[in-house]
Amino acid sequence: MEVEIATIGGYEAVGRQMTAVRAGDDVVIFDMGLNLSKVLIHDNVETERMHSLDLIDMGAIPDDRVMSDLEGDVKAIVPTHGHLDHIGAISKLAHRYDAPIVASPFTIELVKQQIKSEEKFGVQNDLVKMSAGETMSIGERNELEFVNVTHSIIDAINPVLHTPEGAVVYGLDKRMDHTPVIGDPIDMKRFREIGREGVLCYIEDCTNAGRKGRTPSESVARRHLKDVMTSIEDYDGGIVATTFSSHIARVKSLVEFADDIGRQPVLLGRSMEKYSGTAERLDFVDFPEDLGMYGHRKSVDRTFKRIMNEGKENFFPIVTGHQGEPRAMLTRMGRGETPYELDDGDKVLFSARVIPEPTNEGQRYQSEKLLGMQGARIYDDIHVSGHLRQEGHYEMLDALQPKNVIPAHQSLEGFAPYVDLAEDMGYKAGRDLHITRNGNMIKLTE
Amino acid sequence: MEVEIATIGGYEAVGRQMTAVRAGDDVVIFDMGLNLSKVLIHDNVETERMHSLDLIDMGAIPDDRVMSDLEGDVKAIVPTHGHLDHIGAISKLAHRYDAPIVASPFTIELVKQQIKSEEKFGVQNDLVKMSAGETMSIGERNELEFVNVTHSIIDAINPVLHTPEGAVVYGLDKRMDHTPVIGDPIDMKRFREIGREGVLCYIEDCTNAGRKGRTPSESVARRHLKDVMTSIEDYDGGIVATTFSSHIARVKSLVEFADDIGRQPVLLGRSMEKYSGTAERLDFVDFPEDLGMYGHRKSVDRTFKRIMNEGKENFFPIVTGHQGEPRAMLTRMGRGETPYELDDGDKVLFSARVIPEPTNEGQRYQSEKLLGMQGARIYDDIHVSGHLRQEGHYEMLDALQPKNVIPAHQSLEGFAPYVDLAEDMGYKAGRDLHITRNGNMIKLTE
Amino acid sequence: MEVEIATIGGYEAVGRQMTAVRAGDDVVIFDMGLNLSKVLIHDNVETERMHSLDLIDMGAIPDDRVMSDLEGDVKAIVPTHGHLDHIGAISKLAHRYDAPIVASPFTIELVKQQIKSEEKFGVQNDLVKMSAGETMSIGERNELEFVNVTHSIIDAINPVLHTPEGAVVYGLDKRMDHTPVIGDPIDMKRFREIGREGVLCYIEDCTNAGRKGRTPSESVARRHLKDVMTSIEDYDGGIVATTFSSHIARVKSLVEFADDIGRQPVLLGRSMEKYSGTAERLDFVDFPEDLGMYGHRKSVDRTFKRIMNEGKENFFPIVTGHQGEPRAMLTRMGRGETPYELDDGDKVLFSARVIPEPTNEGQRYQSEKLLGMQGARIYDDIHVSGHLRQEGHYEMLDALQPKNVIPAHQSLEGFAPYVDLAEDMGYKAGRDLHITRNGNMIKLTE
Amino acid sequence: MEVEIATIGGYEAVGRQMTAVRAGDDVVIFDMGLNLSKVLIHDNVETERMHSLDLIDMGAIPDDRVMSDLEGDVKAIVPTHGHLDHIGAISKLAHRYDAPIVASPFTIELVKQQIKSEEKFGVQNDLVKMSAGETMSIGERNELEFVNVTHSIIDAINPVLHTPEGAVVYGLDKRMDHTPVIGDPIDMKRFREIGREGVLCYIEDCTNAGRKGRTPSESVARRHLKDVMTSIEDYDGGIVATTFSSHIARVKSLVEFADDIGRQPVLLGRSMEKYSGTAERLDFVDFPEDLGMYGHRKSVDRTFKRIMNEGKENFFPIVTGHQGEPRAMLTRMGRGETPYELDDGDKVLFSARVIPEPTNEGQRYQSEKLLGMQGARIYDDIHVSGHLRQEGHYEMLDALQPKNVIPAHQSLEGFAPYVDLAEDMGYKAGRDLHITRNGNMIKLTE
Repeated sequence: MEVEIATIGGYEAVGRQMTAVRAGDDVVIFDMGLNLSKVLIHDNVETERMHSLDLIDMGAIPDDRVMSDLEGDVKAIVPTHGHLDHIGAISKLAHRYDAPIVASPFTIELVKQQIKSEEKFGVQNDLVKMSAGETMSIGERNELEFVNVTHSIIDAINPVLHTPEGAVVYGLDKRMDHTPVIGDPIDMKRFREIGREGVLCYIEDCTNAGRKGRTPSESVARRHLKDVMTSIEDYDGGIVATTFSSHIARVKSLVEFADDIGRQPVLLGRSMEKYSGTAERLDFVDFPEDLGMYGHRKSVDRTFKRIMNEGKENFFPIVTGHQGEPRAMLTRMGRGETPYELDDGDKVLFSARVIPEPTNEGQRYQSEKLLGMQGARIYDDIHVSGHLRQEGHYEMLDALQPKNVIPAHQSLEGFAPYVDLAEDMGYKAGRDLHITRNGNMIKLTE
Repeated sequence: MEVEIATIGGYEAVGRQMTAVRAGDDVVIFDMGLNLSKVLIHDNVETERMHSLDLIDMGAIPDDRVMSDLEGDVKAIVPTHGHLDHIGAISKLAHRYDAPIVASPFTIELVKQQIKSEEKFGVQNDLVKMSAGETMSIGERNELEFVNVTHSIIDAINPVLHTPEGAVVYGLDKRMDHTPVIGDPIDMKRFREIGREGVLCYIEDCTNAGRKGRTPSESVARRHLKDVMTSIEDYDGGIVATTFSSHIARVKSLVEFADDIGRQPVLLGRSMEKYSGTAERLDFVDFPEDLGMYGHRKSVDRTFKRIMNEGKENFFPIVTGHQGEPRAMLTRMGRGETPYELDDGDKVLFSARVIPEPTNEGQRYQSEKLLGMQGARIYDDIHVSGHLRQEGHYEMLDALQPKNVIPAHQSLEGFAPYVDLAEDMGYKAGRDLHITRNGNMIKLTE
Repeated sequence: MEVEIATIGGYEAVGRQMTAVRAGDDVVIFDMGLNLSKVLIHDNVETERMHSLDLIDMGAIPDDRVMSDLEGDVKAIVPTHGHLDHIGAISKLAHRYDAPIVASPFTIELVKQQIKSEEKFGVQNDLVKMSAGETMSIGERNELEFVNVTHSIIDAINPVLHTPEGAVVYGLDKRMDHTPVIGDPIDMKRFREIGREGVLCYIEDCTNAGRKGRTPSESVARRHLKDVMTSIEDYDGGIVATTFSSHIARVKSLVEFADDIGRQPVLLGRSMEKYSGTAERLDFVDFPEDLGMYGHRKSVDRTFKRIMNEGKENFFPIVTGHQGEPRAMLTRMGRGETPYELDDGDKVLFSARVIPEPTNEGQRYQSEKLLGMQGARIYDDIHVSGHLRQEGHYEMLDALQPKNVIPAHQSLEGFAPYVDLAEDMGYKAGRDLHITRNGNMIKLTE
Repeated sequence: MEVEIATIGGYEAVGRQMTAVRAGDDVVIFDMGLNLSKVLIHDNVETERMHSLDLIDMGAIPDDRVMSDLEGDVKAIVPTHGHLDHIGAISKLAHRYDAPIVASPFTIELVKQQIKSEEKFGVQNDLVKMSAGETMSIGERNELEFVNVTHSIIDAINPVLHTPEGAVVYGLDKRMDHTPVIGDPIDMKRFREIGREGVLCYIEDCTNAGRKGRTPSESVARRHLKDVMTSIEDYDGGIVATTFSSHIARVKSLVEFADDIGRQPVLLGRSMEKYSGTAERLDFVDFPEDLGMYGHRKSVDRTFKRIMNEGKENFFPIVTGHQGEPRAMLTRMGRGETPYELDDGDKVLFSARVIPEPTNEGQRYQSEKLLGMQGARIYDDIHVSGHLRQEGHYEMLDALQPKNVIPAHQSLEGFAPYVDLAEDMGYKAGRDLHITRNGNMIKLTE
């Protein structure tokens, strides 16, 4: 059977991930993501109303026109998890394909919300929930399986397309976490089994391939966070925290430790409400019954007023703004634009790392400056990455023993340390290690 | 009563710490340290046989000649903990003073060993053990107290000289650890009491004053280390670790987790044997009875041979060489100079951070390169610092409310962020915040 | 005679320079500057209408309230050169003093323009022009002299107050340039003479004190610029350059080399017109008669249209925007907001260095990204600094042999390498080397 | 005609460059280089006596075993210039090929010396001198041409193999210098002609591909150097300089400016004597008749003694040691191991940049520390690179318009910015832009 990989997006930079695998006449698409930075660099661009071709020209969504070169029928569109760089283009591209969107329950819910907010296209693809460990037939001879992985968002999976020629494992995005705070550990047992069954191709996220060692477990970040929060237990003024809104495990830790130090947690900001509300509704997390979540500006401000009235020392607001985004809640707090007043000695916890790019660094710097000018004390970098480092990659290759390897989810510069690693392990670029770019076809079997 | 501080060493760079406090006619000396890098930059210098004046000229030990300007009698020499930059000059300088060396039990033991290895001077000062929480009279009107602190070596204290004018708190070196792996948490309760009683002066270690947030607890490093070691539990080849030899809490964690993953730990290298042996003998740590510790080259090599014979997969050598020191055990392993043979995939854990200086960085780079050329996989930076960051400093100043503050244990560049912090909290340089250099006198009361 | 220095502003960060020297009953104020970054971090602050106390609270202008502690009469306000961080607070503070503003001709002209744009205060101080090499009596026993120095703006001087106790040399800002492109070389002969006559105190700009070697001459930057411009001589599309508007020598080189490669230079942007227009009017530079300078948006856009009509290949626009300032001309060009259309291969020359601060770095990054998205090719860093490096500082101290040294124009971190240098040369902090902060008095003689 | 490229060495890291081009039955080898860092990491390795297979295993010399897969006869071995990473493996590999070594006169001379020092193999290949602008037949249908380029060594060329299918241009190493200090400017006219004639393939050195703008001309470095040296003209103590020994243009500038400031230059160190002596003998440079060059330790020390006797202020030693190499002359001077005594204020000029790698950085740091401890003042970074930056690469591609592009002379990480540039210009990786590794074959025509 012919097996062919179309590397559509995310092979020149992180952001607009999209890959198609053809096995015989069946095609499966993995991810349809958005590169948000390509949108934000322009002033006043609203993607909701934009046409896909314009977004393709901007480099914001995958250029899926190469799909016409793939002979075969798309049988499924499979986003691996709910981050925007994996699902953000679905509302712009999915309607072109007569295929269901198959994803884990939490991811499906986020896809649903994204489709709802779309104003230009009517996306009507079926939405099919499939959980880690489950499988689905793809055409007559192929089978799709979801393997549980651990990432900085819950309910992430790595899809595996089992073909008669071997498995195609799509490895975006994950870290190897044996003690995640929510959900099951990464299913290395299953990966090793699949390795023994035979892997034709492994497509891998290279984000941290240049960093030595292994990415710590979420439980290490949780231990670190606990250490910080316990140390300020006796402080009797304001304490505020921010993190990635979609990072439910982290939000859960923040909520729990807030309770431990005698403060009432409250989630503030549109995306805080969205992700945590969804996770709670789907029973992924068991928040305290009275946990407030407020997204609309009015209810946020009302909450801030209540906090100021009842005493800042009783609350623990968890807000948006970890990258210093100019319009996010924490930045507005720094500018004094909310009813929450910061005093000398108040604590601000960034349970996040600055994404290393000059725009973010400048914005985050400004946000911290503004907070500091009001007396806030900053605790930053209480975080672990969601992506494998070198030794995680080493273990994955060791477990899967794939015949072919395709580095993905990075620029060429980002691929480089992964290529070095794979060559150390016996692969050879140009032979079974495929260094590629957006828009290419890689034929694996004839 | 006149109280005066002589800032003798360690006020222009980390390394040769020494400070004297005169309260009336009584003088107490805190620390007598060695700046090892000033020795190592020269080839073939052996400090054991060198005269103190030569070492002063090299910048290696404190220039204590300013002591002659201090009117009063030295009543005690008080090293705060057992690191070389705090005790390393005792064998060269202490004999000039007719005063006992007063320190915590573990520190006294290390001082004793250091004096024994001295070949030039005969140091005969009394060695007096005093534990955290205990006190001692200094002359008729002053009292010396030891407050328990937490650092990257066990049995560290902060000495406090209680004078009629208020307490002089000597704050070198510590982090604020509420869950250390060995020993008691930092005694913040006592610091707050002392703060309420009245602090005349606080002398503080500024090492990490430029880093935001707080230094994590040793238990965060322990959790991180556990995460790494558990993740390689199933590996059936060689696993080797290195850390600071004097960091008994870390060595203890390594030893325990080695057992957890089914390997026999063994400590190798002269200083590994020295520090861990001492800690065990003094009952600071309870190692397994059969824990091997070998320092002499012959016994090390014999142990390596045994490991190779009985199977690397059964052992967990903990060795010297975390900074890539050219003659340390791990570097020799990288060069293939020991009987231990590294194979593809063997793991090397650096439970340490490279001390950021080009010489170290170059040596560590070479060590990792050599290990990598033999197939080793590197896990680095499994570590937390032993020094307070900004928010620890904030809390200490908040607890002590000192009348005067003296930044120490850094260069002027290193003082800068501490000065910014102290000024944010209301101190003023030139008034009650004393930016100083080696060899100065600061008169606090008339 | 009592001589006393008040270190009012610019001793904790670059920006709002102000220092007063009292010699007997006579006081001279050196510089009254603005820290623009303290203004820009707030949205929509217009300094023109603000009260000085509010600007002091923001940290934007010097807190001159300590002047009331200085006994004596202010006899002159002396800005050293026309940069905003040296003259920008004159319109807010000078009217409080009954004293003339004494400066070099070009500086006086810029002060005049600044006063004119002030909307809150009426500044009526006399404006007195004095050139390098000239002197003026200050009271009965002191004399003010201007020594010619070289900086990144023309007509910069170092004022020297000759007192009976020796000279007070105010050394902000300069580099040691023996072949400046405009004006005379730095007058080292006179500095050495003053050194021999006796210097009581030297106040020095520490900006580059941490950089090894010496700052290259402007003629090195000119040679570099020539190299770049000659190399693209044959390009037949658009070429655009940006630099500091106040850097007349650089603008002159750009204009001349534009002519050399057969293109008509044109200066665009409000501050380009302001500084170059002023320099030309005062005969500091001899631009071609037909050199266009346009500041108002309408005339700029009209010029751009003409350029597009007559052919980009014939022009060389020199525009504002070297730091990626969001509203500057080059950034607008990058956003496609001007009639000038960039094509693939067009060249953009940044004859400037990014001021190393995350906000600037973020903005400049965005500007370059936007330009690059339109096809522009970037040539950056064609520049030399206007501030002395280590060896320039070494030579100045060697020439002046001052009794006292006061590091200025930096944060404490910035002072650190200067302090190291001065101590290497025999000074001692706390004795004759004064490490100070804003708002202090240093009494030099009784 | 079949044209095929074998990318033998230097495609995974800088160092052991080697590329073979087969055009029909004729093969030409470009470069046979040595990666010195792979040798130096081991203690006490002497390459002179080592077998080539051992050196291949160490990664020190190219693995030319893939040459057996190339059908055709090697007609010429063509090193492009005399740097070790281009000629250093000739003594180990050339004897395996029955072909002459064809190079420019200066390069041939260096090859000759290298062969002479070889102790293991007898290399007997003909040495054929060919100058820039000349051509030579390669078999019946191909022709080899040398095009003059500019690099950090004199007499560098880019070889072009003209085949019936178009030219293969081997572009290692160069910068685009229109005003080199020695020799002719880069021959862009000829490159543009070749571009118009048709280029089948361009193999390019990517060293600085990630740096914006263009590499300055050697005359910019010369202007910078003049600025530094003039500024210390009046100093009456010792002045010492170091630079790359093979960088004859820089040595020439140093020698000339030494004379300008009234000092007698003298070249010291084995490789100083070797390269400058060779260049003078071949009439590439016209040094003063009495310029001393001393390589042997004894004559160096004798010279140092003479300098000390006759007065340091009369001399200008130009010595080896710009990277802080432990055994080089300048490092020995820092250690006080030569008769030359450094005094406070003596000047040391590094007309070189530290090659950015931790080993070098550590060694250079130590060297500067040692020099500084003796009072030396350091002037560093008086240098420009010999390799093209982005805009040079842009111009080369624009001039040559090659059908195929092969990035070389870097790691994959180093290729990345070049690939981005080439794709911006319309090339596509996997189609006409070949991202490759050591040991691959690229078939360009059938």
